[in-house]
Amino acid sequence: MNTFGKYFTVTTFGESHGPAIGGVIDGIPSGVAFDRELLDEAMKRRRPGKGIAAESARKESDEVEILSGVFEGFTLGTPIGFIIRNTDSRSADYEELKNISRPSHADRAYLEKYGIRDYRGGGRASARETACRVVAGAFARMALKSRGVEVKATVERVGSCTGSQEELLDEAARYASFGDSIGGVVKCEITGLPAGLGEPVYDKFQAWLASAMMSIPAAKGFEYGIGFEGVSVPGSMQNDLYIKDPESGDVVPMTNNSGGIQGGITNGQPVVFNVAFKPAASIRMPQPIVDDSGNPVVLKIRGRHDACVAFRAVPVVEAMAWITILDMTLADRARRDFPISEA
Amino acid sequence: MNTFGKYFTVTTFGESHGPAIGGVIDGIPSGVAFDRELLDEAMKRRRPGKGIAAESARKESDEVEILSGVFEGFTLGTPIGFIIRNTDSRSADYEELKNISRPSHADRAYLEKYGIRDYRGGGRASARETACRVVAGAFARMALKSRGVEVKATVERVGSCTGSQEELLDEAARYASFGDSIGGVVKCEITGLPAGLGEPVYDKFQAWLASAMMSIPAAKGFEYGIGFEGVSVPGSMQNDLYIKDPESGDVVPMTNNSGGIQGGITNGQPVVFNVAFKPAASIRMPQPIVDDSGNPVVLKIRGRHDACVAFRAVPVVEAMAWITILDMTLADRARRDFPISEA
Amino acid sequence: MNTFGKYFTVTTFGESHGPAIGGVIDGIPSGVAFDRELLDEAMKRRRPGKGIAAESARKESDEVEILSGVFEGFTLGTPIGFIIRNTDSRSADYEELKNISRPSHADRAYLEKYGIRDYRGGGRASARETACRVVAGAFARMALKSRGVEVKATVERVGSCTGSQEELLDEAARYASFGDSIGGVVKCEITGLPAGLGEPVYDKFQAWLASAMMSIPAAKGFEYGIGFEGVSVPGSMQNDLYIKDPESGDVVPMTNNSGGIQGGITNGQPVVFNVAFKPAASIRMPQPIVDDSGNPVVLKIRGRHDACVAFRAVPVVEAMAWITILDMTLADRARRDFPISEA
Amino acid sequence: MNTFGKYFTVTTFGESHGPAIGGVIDGIPSGVAFDRELLDEAMKRRRPGKGIAAESARKESDEVEILSGVFEGFTLGTPIGFIIRNTDSRSADYEELKNISRPSHADRAYLEKYGIRDYRGGGRASARETACRVVAGAFARMALKSRGVEVKATVERVGSCTGSQEELLDEAARYASFGDSIGGVVKCEITGLPAGLGEPVYDKFQAWLASAMMSIPAAKGFEYGIGFEGVSVPGSMQNDLYIKDPESGDVVPMTNNSGGIQGGITNGQPVVFNVAFKPAASIRMPQPIVDDSGNPVVLKIRGRHDACVAFRAVPVVEAMAWITILDMTLADRARRDFPISEA
Repeated sequence: MNTFGKYFTVTTFGESHGPAIGGVIDGIPSGVAFDRELLDEAMKRRRPGKGIAAESARKESDEVEILSGVFEGFTLGTPIGFIIRNTDSRSADYEELKNISRPSHADRAYLEKYGIRDYRGGGRASARETACRVVAGAFARMALKSRGVEVKATVERVGSCTGSQEELLDEAARYASFGDSIGGVVKCEITGLPAGLGEPVYDKFQAWLASAMMSIPAAKGFEYGIGFEGVSVPGSMQNDLYIKDPESGDVVPMTNNSGGIQGGITNGQPVVFNVAFKPAASIRMPQPIVDDSGNPVVLKIRGRHDACVAFRAVPVVEAMAWITILDMTLADRARRDFPISEA
Repeated sequence: MNTFGKYFTVTTFGESHGPAIGGVIDGIPSGVAFDRELLDEAMKRRRPGKGIAAESARKESDEVEILSGVFEGFTLGTPIGFIIRNTDSRSADYEELKNISRPSHADRAYLEKYGIRDYRGGGRASARETACRVVAGAFARMALKSRGVEVKATVERVGSCTGSQEELLDEAARYASFGDSIGGVVKCEITGLPAGLGEPVYDKFQAWLASAMMSIPAAKGFEYGIGFEGVSVPGSMQNDLYIKDPESGDVVPMTNNSGGIQGGITNGQPVVFNVAFKPAASIRMPQPIVDDSGNPVVLKIRGRHDACVAFRAVPVVEAMAWITILDMTLADRARRDFPISEA
Repeated sequence: MNTFGKYFTVTTFGESHGPAIGGVIDGIPSGVAFDRELLDEAMKRRRPGKGIAAESARKESDEVEILSGVFEGFTLGTPIGFIIRNTDSRSADYEELKNISRPSHADRAYLEKYGIRDYRGGGRASARETACRVVAGAFARMALKSRGVEVKATVERVGSCTGSQEELLDEAARYASFGDSIGGVVKCEITGLPAGLGEPVYDKFQAWLASAMMSIPAAKGFEYGIGFEGVSVPGSMQNDLYIKDPESGDVVPMTNNSGGIQGGITNGQPVVFNVAFKPAASIRMPQPIVDDSGNPVVLKIRGRHDACVAFRAVPVVEAMAWITILDMTLADRARRDFPISEA
Repeated sequence: MNTFGKYFTVTTFGESHGPAIGGVIDGIPSGVAFDRELLDEAMKRRRPGKGIAAESARKESDEVEILSGVFEGFTLGTPIGFIIRNTDSRSADYEELKNISRPSHADRAYLEKYGIRDYRGGGRASARETACRVVAGAFARMALKSRGVEVKATVERVGSCTGSQEELLDEAARYASFGDSIGGVVKCEITGLPAGLGEPVYDKFQAWLASAMMSIPAAKGFEYGIGFEGVSVPGSMQNDLYIKDPESGDVVPMTNNSGGIQGGITNGQPVVFNVAFKPAASIRMPQPIVDDSGNPVVLKIRGRHDACVAFRAVPVVEAMAWITILDMTLADRARRDFPISEA
């Protein structure tokens, strides 16, 4: 339940207002150079505060303590244990939410499932959990460093706005300014992937990617290649026809409506996909609801929340992509070019 | 790779032009009444031929032979083995495709991954494989029969057309008439689900659903609840506010933009999702491409193919939903209401 | 539950008196030459009838029908589906056992677990299931053919007799002659294994081997290397001291009390292990028991059963060893010599 | 690789001389009362120093810090993260072992597999890792507290001595006194188990138990019920005949040679098994070997090591048994008494 991946895995733990969050990264090859800078940079990009007044954001140092699996600068091939202490948790903010389930949050669902919940800041359902994904993603990236793979996610849309990054941030800030929130679309492109990743038929590359992305808090949709738009483009115009590359002489598809994946297997073209994120459910605007006992209350969520989660989701989307790529690389590697019998 | 599910699983095998396809369904509870009619009905709905001239469609009897796990009309709790013979395979149709990779098909990807491929009708990548999903889905449905769960998928859109079923079929037939193909969107609604299904944080209900749906051939996108559209609906208007149900007195969400899932866990509301399918890549229209050696050829795919796969995908989407529901029901059941210690 | 292995897997189905048994072998590399002779030979060795009057043994042709995954003589990398029809099942033999649980059989345990059981010949618990293991083992062996690995199991002991194979067969026949049964020890040696197989810490080579062997019907004990006997040999005499091999100049252990495994990882020395099998629980001698309702009966098991299952277990032990070796080879291969970053 | 269990899992990390060891326990039901005393007591029993001079033993406080999953005294149903700091690691002891592979240790195997190893105290292969198993076992036990299950392991034999606990300790101390080591057998009895645990055919109760026990460092053999001894007891004398219990009137087996498991499923009788442990490979006696370059050296292992690991293994064997029991309880619970269709 709290493990992602099959060959390269990350198992995480932690409530947002407990002592710490953390996890175990397993299956990383030995001999990978540990790159602290890469890790810290990824963590920094995930920090809250985008599209909201900076002074209100939770100030987590998000220092990642590596507890095992790295020795004299290189991975040992053994599991990497890590923790991130929760240092700026203001549990008092949540005391009044003890008997209130916030709309479109996980509060009530957890209570129904478990009969108990940590009401402080979403507990396990908090977006804080995504920090651990970023750690694992950073290690996956370190392992793949010499392979020429690049993963690049960007916010493509905020609400109905599809302008420049600055315009997108402005649009988010506008909603934040009156205590509301707004959704966004994150586009991600993976280049440099070799052909052959993906395992038919249930572990298709896109199936793993979709599972990875849809497990991110607030994600509501996933599409790859031409996606939903391709529903109305006829086969004759959508098929990626094979041509001879004039330079290399290789047989390659002329277009990439397939989004780099055919039959669940990468074909060497860029893998492109979009993830839709809903507006943050935590808004400062007053919301007229009933509490868990059915009594009317007007909910004003204090806490410290982004108006548009898509910005913070960017490094998380990238991290989940890196994890998936390494996972599928190992899956493929196990069997590829297996020295066969002499027939 | 060829197993779907964690607690309730189906492991399948089979190339489209080999002797048979089939699989093993594992994890089904004992004592479930075997319902042959339900199974046959589901299989019938999956048969090819929608939106194309009926006489050209492959005539598979698709008879499912149950080899184990059912005894005197009830499941034993042991695995259910089944096979479906391939009876109407016209391999000759494919002989000429030996050295040609069809555009937007899995042909080339398989060849690059495995160094070998069964070129007859897509081999393992054929949509014929989905027959096995329908068998497993039927068993999942039998197991859940007494629980009041309903799964209903329908084609919602074909190309740009969003009319009645008949209009949608007409639209598909129109593309078929000139040898082209077109995409479609399948909408699926699950009602009667209990609250509490879904396992945080990586095995969220929507993550499993997404993985299930994106593993179906030709699926290009997945969204649930308000989906991609919700990107531009502010939090204040999208949040599902809790009200007291005037009749039952229960605390319930007033709207269902969450699509029945919050924090990865079902909340008792209907689970609603869409799956986008691209146009069939196999079209009769001539396609100017190069073969595997780079020589120009004009490809005219004969075979027998639907113009719009969305229609046949309907029972497959339902099957994958049933499998996911039973899988998550068992996952939840393992721990729910566990008799705890006396403290 | 009915899947063995993690990277190379076999998922099986089938009751002993149903229409067929069979399974799906997944994760086999592509391009492996299919060796029908090797398969048939292994199946032949597993057939019942050792140590009992030949005319009474069940006459199963045990013909393995391969339904997928092999194309023009080579594996495709896709799953291998197979079935074995049950042709000589005499269900009538078991009608009288409908309400009787045979001593030291699975009958009652299945009934308690599932509330239902196929009483004909043990159903799923029948040793007939091991035929599927032999099929999977044969494929694993085909894949490893060019690697110089050898697996050789032999019956080492029958009852208290540790003589030649002929003497051991005689000892078994002696018990058979008066309707009783006797246990046996199967010793297995794996040579030619490379160093480095096995995944610390829970997937140690010996842990997987133990799990593989203890899942075989009637297995009661597993030991490797010096095993139980080593309990009383002091460390100073049991440690495998490193010496320089006079011929190769390599550093190698002088002895092999470790049984080829250190810290859960193979060290290049032969892996040696023993499996203890109890006497067949099905004996012709009358047994005074009570039936499921508590009424006294004198049970005389007819059917057709080996007196000493160790003989038939030999190819099964080998098969499980082959499966484990290929599984661990793939696990190791996924990460071994991973092209690392430039630091 | 570093995860044990399927439904109730523990994933661990940590080298013996790194900053900390720890892990993530997943799948524990919610609402389980956290019992710190039970945990501390189990940890205390695992501490080194049995059978050797107390002053030389590593002095680890072994304080378990729980980082998540427990809230106001009860489990949340979310994963339990925990760490144990390494406080008394004397890495200097191991500096001289940088280029020496100790006999019958994992040193060389790790180096061959990973191309790199943490030479300080065995790194990941250290018995220190078993502390994490004890933590997970304690949580499993807490969850099962109200069910009447008891797990009791004891050292049954040290070398050839099968006397009282005191005599066994004396025997171990005798070997320790001259710098040697000796093996031992741990016997474990599980009582109060319900019938029905265990999943045929590859996940038999004994298969999981064997895998659990054989993954413990230094374990060389596993047997259950009558075990290896039963090889020479004829079926007619070994079969557990069913009788009517004079008091309860229930149909029960008269004897328990089956060790509480039939057909891989528990039958309600006590589950009894033995685990053989080899002598500690770390001995103070000088050992004439060659180093990794083939140069002769006389190895005197300093460090701090038990002469007979069986004593410390007792709580580890119990922990692995508890984990297996909870794991199999959840596996069974998922499907047992499933509300079936009305037929």
